[in-house]
Formats: sequence, structure tokens, C-alpha cells
Amino acid sequence: MQEQKSYKWFLDILSPDEGHVHGIKTVLFSKQTKFQQVEIMDTGGYGLCLVLDGKIQSSEKDEFIYHEALVHPAMLAHPDPKRVFVVGGGEGATLREVLRHRSVEHAMMVDIDQEVVESCKKHLPQLHQGSFDDPRAEVKFLDARKVLEESQDRYDIIVIDISEPVVEGPAYLLYTKEFYNLVQKRLTPNGLITLQAGTTAHTCFDCFNAVYQTIKSVPIAVPYEAWIPSFGLPWGFIAASNTVDPRQPSREDVDKAIATRLKGGLQYFDGETHQGQYKLGKHTREALAKGTRIIEDNHPLYTYN
Amino acid sequence: MQEQKSYKWFLDILSPDEGHVHGIKTVLFSKQTKFQQVEIMDTGGYGLCLVLDGKIQSSEKDEFIYHEALVHPAMLAHPDPKRVFVVGGGEGATLREVLRHRSVEHAMMVDIDQEVVESCKKHLPQLHQGSFDDPRAEVKFLDARKVLEESQDRYDIIVIDISEPVVEGPAYLLYTKEFYNLVQKRLTPNGLITLQAGTTAHTCFDCFNAVYQTIKSVPIAVPYEAWIPSFGLPWGFIAASNTVDPRQPSREDVDKAIATRLKGGLQYFDGETHQGQYKLGKHTREALAKGTRIIEDNHPLYTYN
Amino acid sequence: MQEQKSYKWFLDILSPDEGHVHGIKTVLFSKQTKFQQVEIMDTGGYGLCLVLDGKIQSSEKDEFIYHEALVHPAMLAHPDPKRVFVVGGGEGATLREVLRHRSVEHAMMVDIDQEVVESCKKHLPQLHQGSFDDPRAEVKFLDARKVLEESQDRYDIIVIDISEPVVEGPAYLLYTKEFYNLVQKRLTPNGLITLQAGTTAHTCFDCFNAVYQTIKSVPIAVPYEAWIPSFGLPWGFIAASNTVDPRQPSREDVDKAIATRLKGGLQYFDGETHQGQYKLGKHTREALAKGTRIIEDNHPLYTYN
Amino acid sequence: MQEQKSYKWFLDILSPDEGHVHGIKTVLFSKQTKFQQVEIMDTGGYGLCLVLDGKIQSSEKDEFIYHEALVHPAMLAHPDPKRVFVVGGGEGATLREVLRHRSVEHAMMVDIDQEVVESCKKHLPQLHQGSFDDPRAEVKFLDARKVLEESQDRYDIIVIDISEPVVEGPAYLLYTKEFYNLVQKRLTPNGLITLQAGTTAHTCFDCFNAVYQTIKSVPIAVPYEAWIPSFGLPWGFIAASNTVDPRQPSREDVDKAIATRLKGGLQYFDGETHQGQYKLGKHTREALAKGTRIIEDNHPLYTYN
Repeated sequence: MQEQKSYKWFLDILSPDEGHVHGIKTVLFSKQTKFQQVEIMDTGGYGLCLVLDGKIQSSEKDEFIYHEALVHPAMLAHPDPKRVFVVGGGEGATLREVLRHRSVEHAMMVDIDQEVVESCKKHLPQLHQGSFDDPRAEVKFLDARKVLEESQDRYDIIVIDISEPVVEGPAYLLYTKEFYNLVQKRLTPNGLITLQAGTTAHTCFDCFNAVYQTIKSVPIAVPYEAWIPSFGLPWGFIAASNTVDPRQPSREDVDKAIATRLKGGLQYFDGETHQGQYKLGKHTREALAKGTRIIEDNHPLYTYN
Repeated sequence: MQEQKSYKWFLDILSPDEGHVHGIKTVLFSKQTKFQQVEIMDTGGYGLCLVLDGKIQSSEKDEFIYHEALVHPAMLAHPDPKRVFVVGGGEGATLREVLRHRSVEHAMMVDIDQEVVESCKKHLPQLHQGSFDDPRAEVKFLDARKVLEESQDRYDIIVIDISEPVVEGPAYLLYTKEFYNLVQKRLTPNGLITLQAGTTAHTCFDCFNAVYQTIKSVPIAVPYEAWIPSFGLPWGFIAASNTVDPRQPSREDVDKAIATRLKGGLQYFDGETHQGQYKLGKHTREALAKGTRIIEDNHPLYTYN
Repeated sequence: MQEQKSYKWFLDILSPDEGHVHGIKTVLFSKQTKFQQVEIMDTGGYGLCLVLDGKIQSSEKDEFIYHEALVHPAMLAHPDPKRVFVVGGGEGATLREVLRHRSVEHAMMVDIDQEVVESCKKHLPQLHQGSFDDPRAEVKFLDARKVLEESQDRYDIIVIDISEPVVEGPAYLLYTKEFYNLVQKRLTPNGLITLQAGTTAHTCFDCFNAVYQTIKSVPIAVPYEAWIPSFGLPWGFIAASNTVDPRQPSREDVDKAIATRLKGGLQYFDGETHQGQYKLGKHTREALAKGTRIIEDNHPLYTYN
Repeated sequence: MQEQKSYKWFLDILSPDEGHVHGIKTVLFSKQTKFQQVEIMDTGGYGLCLVLDGKIQSSEKDEFIYHEALVHPAMLAHPDPKRVFVVGGGEGATLREVLRHRSVEHAMMVDIDQEVVESCKKHLPQLHQGSFDDPRAEVKFLDARKVLEESQDRYDIIVIDISEPVVEGPAYLLYTKEFYNLVQKRLTPNGLITLQAGTTAHTCFDCFNAVYQTIKSVPIAVPYEAWIPSFGLPWGFIAASNTVDPRQPSREDVDKAIATRLKGGLQYFDGETHQGQYKLGKHTREALAKGTRIIEDNHPLYTYN
């Protein structure tokens, strides 16, 4: 029989009937901020992890999959991304991947919760790797929707890196038709939006499906998947644009762009990963084809309701 | 905060530091057989599940992904599979998928544990769907290795559908170089082997990698992935052959073959799934390229040792 | 390190911060009745258990402590109990202990949930031991409060054997001042009430304390404790009467009464247990002395609110 | 349904089939020392806890019960305890209770694990309350058995405050006939030994029973119980002496001795607690009467073997 090494466990509740447990070595930070429960733990299986409201956001050992999958498909599809806006992204790892692109001149990150950013800065240098100190980066602790509403600035890439709206919380107005319309208006003509939208497991597919239906009004909206082991379920992303199809580049295009446009190599994403990630299982495609639920400010979505 | 609906939980231990928990509605069968702990449970998230030695094998809600991914890539790559040998596969769902192929004349299934098969027959009709009663099927309760050793019969497809050798148990001699050599000798000239080989999560990759290195002596050995949500981690398969490359068929070939050669449609696997499943993440390809561990009868592998 | 034998666990949530887990061998019965979630499980540590709304009620291995502690202190304090009324007690084990007393001529048991009684009858013969078939027993499936309201019948002993009112559920109106006043009116002059009232752990003492304050209007109300291991916390009971003090009998009186008045010996309760059980820890006595909360129909108590 | 507040859980495994879980707020200290896994956690239900090898030793909220029950029955039974030896007791709370006695002139504490003591000193001031700085206290980090072997010094009270020998570990040679013989030789004529010896739950009674049988060669050996909620099961202690029976003092004697001989009042122990604690349940007395297992250096006991 398999023996368990830990006495302390983190239970990441995936649904009322399902969870993923991680043996905890120690807890570096634990605080209820104004917005959410923030925890930084050292786990036996995945090293240091950022956990928000009980859900793992990033782990030292596999965050490279999540952050490369979130950032590079959209950024490499754009011919020359100069201005990038990051919604959320408290660990600084999304910023880190954005700033690998030599073309980037300005990366604005807006996270509502300063305490998340400060605790990650202090306890998770493996994740941000100094990205907050890059002179091209600007970090604001505000409501990203308000920031986008109040300024007419446009961006080549807008990355939405926030928790899916499981229950009422800071994120739910960043997952609505009204918000996506706003984001779309803040794109430059060849700009792209990229975002994570929860699991693609068909057993808990309501959230991803509704986000996809909601953002589909953007002319090109492409769902794709990556497998981040610590998340315990397959994970879904969407890249959207008025003009650019992120699937278009060939395998060779992608490999060449990575070699020439990025500082440092990637661990997860390359031309072959690119080729595979848009090929969803038949059941997933069929469920997306049948989805009808649109998320609106007055009709928000909470995964488990 | 997320509320939990269940009081009874099944903990599927994935590693000493990690597990996946499933709320249990009820337990239909639970017995320590001569070979393993067998349990059939009704879970809140995945319906009825077969669990062997504490590890989920199949769930009512997502076994279609596992069994379609295990059986069809190899069978559709073969021009005309007539004789199929299934190692293990106690639920009868592998047999079910094999028998969908009109070309199949004889499907021999050899599972060492009659009590697994009998309990699945009784409690999991959703899984076998009558496959045990198909006149083309023959089921033996024996050591599959011995059966293959003692007969010179050859098969077009050999499906190895057994638990990976986590700890000492019935399966460990079915995951060695000597066994794969034997299986290879029992293939017809265009025959293929297909098998599951554990998670492809890079954090627990030793098992899959070693199985791949071990079977690589077969001229064409192709790893691929599927995500079965109830397993809690991405999952790996290998198809191998002396002459046939399962990646070869085009998307259209696959869709056409499914339409013409199979009874009933598939839910997970089709031409697009086929195209995507062989495209592993860069880190996975690199780890496979660096692997050196060969599993031998005298040098067996136990995942957590 | 301690190894765990089970893959299936029952989590008995004791408070939002605490629980007791039991390895499950199998589940014999599981149903949401009109009133509650009913489960009968076979556990590795305590054998067969009745679980209502996720809280263990009785286990094969230690129910003798609970039922002897609940029934005999009051019954042995009464000179000659002939008529007994049991509120709840679905397993039939309270009835069993009541019927051990040769003096009993009529034992009326009223449990609101017929499905609990039927499932215990079928799956837990070790608990009822045929008590339902005793000609002195009468079982009704009704609201016990209504039964007591609608009839003027009086009883020598009234045993209240129901779940404490953790959350809104069938029991909450059986734990109020109004109900205790009614029960008191249904006692014969030397009659006693006996009841369980939740844990006496000082860390979760609100429920027991409030029940004690509420029933204290009965002239003699005596709290006492027993430790039932499967409950995971020390457990509290109260015996109350207009005239009889259950502490009065000497050790020898109790031993003699057990020997002469009961069929079969007891496992837990005797003269020495009697002497010890009323001696609560100083902190418990002090907390009881300071309690002020009275439970009323219009001001009910839910343990965790 | 009861909601859980925590995402992080400490699982205190009580047996292969049973455990008690505590919601963790944060972890203050976690280290594998030369001797054991040491953890100091803040839990939602019991505040700060010291945990050794996965088993809770002391919690801020209920350690008063454990330490008062361990120390005072023996010390108050002695007419004038001047010299006290503490085996183990790393938290400093046993020392604290010993030093409450004005009569004490010298309290020697010997704990093998300096890192436990240092971490408790730093993180658990609520427990030691400065006892380590009392001029009457002397603390050594050595094997207590060796210390007692190598010196002929005698003590009025010897408190053995160590983990029961669940598995091979630092404690197992401090629970044998040879060790108790040695301890007995180091007592002054009216001296007493007092120790904790694991749960008294009849479902896991082997450890307590064997310790009792082993120490019974001391002329007066008296088992008693206390209920420390965080331990999840009833707990057992033994006081032993060549000449003094700790049960002898009357309720009034005990109350008077507490009032005159101790600095500060007690929360748990007083004359009434004293009267009750020696009255074990009938099943416990019967099991003790039937026990035969003696623990010897060459025949040690491990609870779960």
C-alpha cells in the first residue's frame, strides 16, 4: 500500500464532490486580505504554491506550463507586441513571460490585491524572477476594469490572469460580456486577448463553456488546453482577436519566433505544443458547439451555483 | 467558500504527497481478492467507479476517454484488425471498444482476477455494455504472460490494459522488456501493441518514461496523452508496432475509418483528437529523450520506490 | 510513520475546524430520507455504524457505552420503572437497554423517520438485538412532541435519544424549554427524564451548556459524562426529575440493582462508573455555572451558528 | 450541512482506521530533527499546537487538562515534594505545573531533543509561561534513561511526559520494565511516578494496558483518565509509588492542598475532579484485570504492530 508522507494537507476543492490534496511541508504566508484568503505554502509534490481562496494558482514546479500557455500563443501570434496589459497576475510570472518578449516596451499590470503582490514578491522570487523590477513594467493596485474604463489607452495584448468566478469575489465582473466588450475596445487593430477560464473537464465544464460563449462575440475566439498537474484537472484558455488567428502560424513559424523574439528558451511551449493545443477532444468541441450561456454583469456566473 | 456535499470520501493516492478525493455516494462492492483490493463505488462526481488497490480504473462519466484513447488509435492504424488480445481490462470496456470494430473476428481477453470481472459484470453494466456476451469474445482468468508464452497464436492488436506497477502486485511482470519482447513476437506482421502507462505529469514521470524506454526496442513506439478527469493527472499511452506508425493516418482517414469500420460513433476520439494527441509538451518530449531506465524482470519498477 | 489502511473515509465534522475520520470498509445503506441523510457503514475501527446527516450515532464496537450511559442511570434511580417513553432512538439499542429492566411493562418509542428504523432493523441486528419484537415494545413513526402533546399518558422514564440540533433539522423543537416543560408534565411523580446533549468539550460547549440551562427549571437536573471513542470528543448527558436525584444511590445500591433488576449484565455501567460519571472537571462545572442561554421555540439553537 | 472553514488540515492518525483532523491556520515551525518531526501549528479549533511525528502533544486551548492531570494528582499525594525529575516534557508546561508547587526546590527536566525545547521556547510562550527561566529549574538535553542510570540522585516525583511508543522512535526504551525498575530506584521513600500512557479507548487499548501491566510491579500503581478534546480519544495516566496511594486524599484534602501549596489556581483539577478520575468504566477495569503483556527492553511495544 502507498504510504503518505505528510501529516498536513491542503485540500483544493474542485467541486462539491471532488478535490485534489497536497501534502504541506510548511506555510510561509497566510492572510485574509480585504479581497481573499492568500496563502503561500511549500508542498511536497509541487514546491512553493500560491493559493487564493483555497485554490492553487501557481506552483513552483509546474507554473511554467500555465504561464507559457497563457502568454505566448497570443504574443507570438502578434507580429510585434509593444504594449501589454495584464489583469491580475499577482505572482508576477505572467509579467515575467510577457517581458521575455524583446518587442515589449510597456507592460502594465493591474491587480486589485496589493497584499498578494507583496507576499509573492517576498516569498516567491522563483516565480516573478525580478519581473517587478523591470523598467518596462508598471504595477498598479486597482480594479482593472475601472482602469480600462477610465483610460482610452490601447494595448497589443491584454492578458486576463485571474481566478475564475467560483463564488462571489473580486473576479466576477471581469468575466462578463460587458468587460470583454471593454477589453476588445482597448485592443490595437491587431491586438489579442488571452485568458484562462477554468477546467475543461466535461464534468465541470459550465464555467469554461460560458466564458467561451461570452467572449465569442469577438470575431476570432479560440479555445485551447494545457495540462498543469497541480491543478488536478485539464485546464482551458481562450485567445481572441478582431483580426489575428493564433492558430495560423506554422510549427516552424512558432519555433523561429521563439528563437528570435524571446529572451531565454521556453520549457513547455514550442511549435509542436502549438500544433497540439488547439486540438480538443471531440466531446469538448461538441459541448462548446452547444453552449448558450452568456455571462453578463446582471447575470453573473458562479461555477458551483 | 466552497461547500462539500459528501461525508464519505475516496482518496486516490497519486504519490506520497498528492491525492485526488472523490465524494462517495455508496459502495456497491468491496473485497480483497487473491490479487488485489477491488471496489465498486458510486461517486458524486463521476458516477460508478471501479477502484483497484485504491486507484481509480474507470468511471462511468469519463471512461469513454480512457477506453477510446487506449483502443482506437492502434486499431484504426491497422488496415483490418481481425484478432485482438486484451491483457487485463476487467471492466469489459476495452473489450467493448475492440468489438465495435466490424473487422474483429476474435477478441481474447485474459485477466488474472475473475472476481474483478464478475463484480464488474454484475455492478457495472454501463461499462461492459454486454461485451462479455459477444460471440466473438473469449475471456480467460489466467496470467496473460503465461498464456502468451504457451501459445504461438498471433494477433493483429494486443491491448495491455492493466494498472501500472505502483507497488509489488499482479502487474509487475507485465511491464518488463521480456514481456514486451514476448508480445512483439505474438504480433502479426502489421500488428500493433497499445497500452496505458501511467501519468505523464512531469512531477511523477518515472513510470511512464521507463515504460517508454523499455518498449522503444519495438521499431515504432509512439507516446501519446489524454486527460481523463477522474484520474486527477494527465495520462499517457503508447502504441507500438514493427511496421505501422499510428500517427500516419490523416485527419480525414481517421474520420472516415471511424464512420465505416465501427459500429456506433465515438465520443472522444476522431480525426482532430488524433491530430492533437501525439503533440506532447516540450518538457515531456525532452524528458522522454533523456530517459534511460529499462524495466527488466530482474530489475522491476515500482512507481514510488 | 503510521500507515493508513483504508482508501475510503468517513469524515465526521465536529466543528468547522475539527473532524474525526473513520476508514470505511463498505457502505450497507445510504439514503436521503424525508428527514435526513441516513447511512449505515462498516468501518475498520468501529464496525457497523449508523450515521445521520454525517454524524455518527452508534457504532457496533462502542454503542454499549452510549446506550448504557443514556438509559441506566435514570432507570436505576427510579424505584420501579414500568412505563418508558423513548424519543428517537432509531437503532433500537435504547429500547434494548430499556427492555433489559424486568420492571418495564410498556416501552413506547416514537421516531419520526421510519426509514431509519427499517434500515437499522435490517442492517444492524447487532444493535437492536430483537428489541423491536419484544411484546412490551410499541413503535410509532410520528413527531414525538405531537404525540406527547396529544395524549395525557404519563411515564416513569422519558429517554430523549436524538441528534443535538446542529443545524435546522427534525430535532430542533425537541430541545426547547417548551418541549422540556411538556416532557416534565408527562412524568409520573417519581419519573425521570434522561437525554444526550452533545459534546462536553469546552471548545464546543455551547450546545450542552444551553440544553443544561434550559432543562434546569426541572428541580433536579444532573449533568454527567461518558467517553464514546467513535464520537471523537467527550460526551454529555443530563438526567432530570422533580423528586429523584440520580446521584443518590450508593455504589453498592447500583451494583445490586443491576444484579437483581436487569436481564443480562452490563459492560460499561456499574456502581463505580456511577460514582465517577457525575464528577465533571472543574472547568466544566464553572462553565455550567456561568451559562445563561435558554433555548426556546422562538429562539432555537444551532450548534454552529 | 456543516461547512468547513479551512483549506489546510492536520491529520492526526490515531490508528490505521481512525484519525482526528484539525483545520490549520498557519504553521510556525516545521522541522525533521535528529529524533522526530517537530511542528508548531496554529489551528482553528485549539490554537497553537505542538505536534511530534504527526501526533498532537499539547494545544493552547486544552493543554491545561493534560498537564494538570499529569502533574498534580501525584504531587498533591506527596506530603512535601522538593525534588522533581521530568522525563521529556519539551513544551515546558509540565515544568510549569511542577513549579507551581511552592515546596519544589529543584526541578530537573531531561529531554533528548533540544530543538523541540528551543522551538517551544520561541513559539509557545503560552505553554511554558517562563518556566524555563525559573531558578529552580534545570534543563538537560540528554537521554533521560542514561541520566537516571549514571547518577544515584533520588527524587520525590518523577514525571514521565513522553509520546507513547507508537513506532520505533526516541521513546521506546522509556516504556519498559527495566526503565520503570530504574525509575523506582530513583524515588525517595514516599516518592511517586506519574506518566501518560496513551488512549484508554477500548478499541486501541493495547498500549495503555501493557504500560499498566509493566509498571504494576511497583506496589501501588493507579490508572486514571482525563478527556483532552484535541487528542480525539479518552486519555490515560498512571501514578505509581512504593508507599503512597494517590487516591487516598479526600476531596477536601485536595482542595485545601491546592489552596495552600500552589501558586495560582488550577483550571481542571480539584477535589471533585480527583474523586472522579480514578473511576474508570467497567469495561476498562475488566480489560486491565485481564492484561498480561509486559514491555521489556528486548520485547518492546509499538502501538500499531
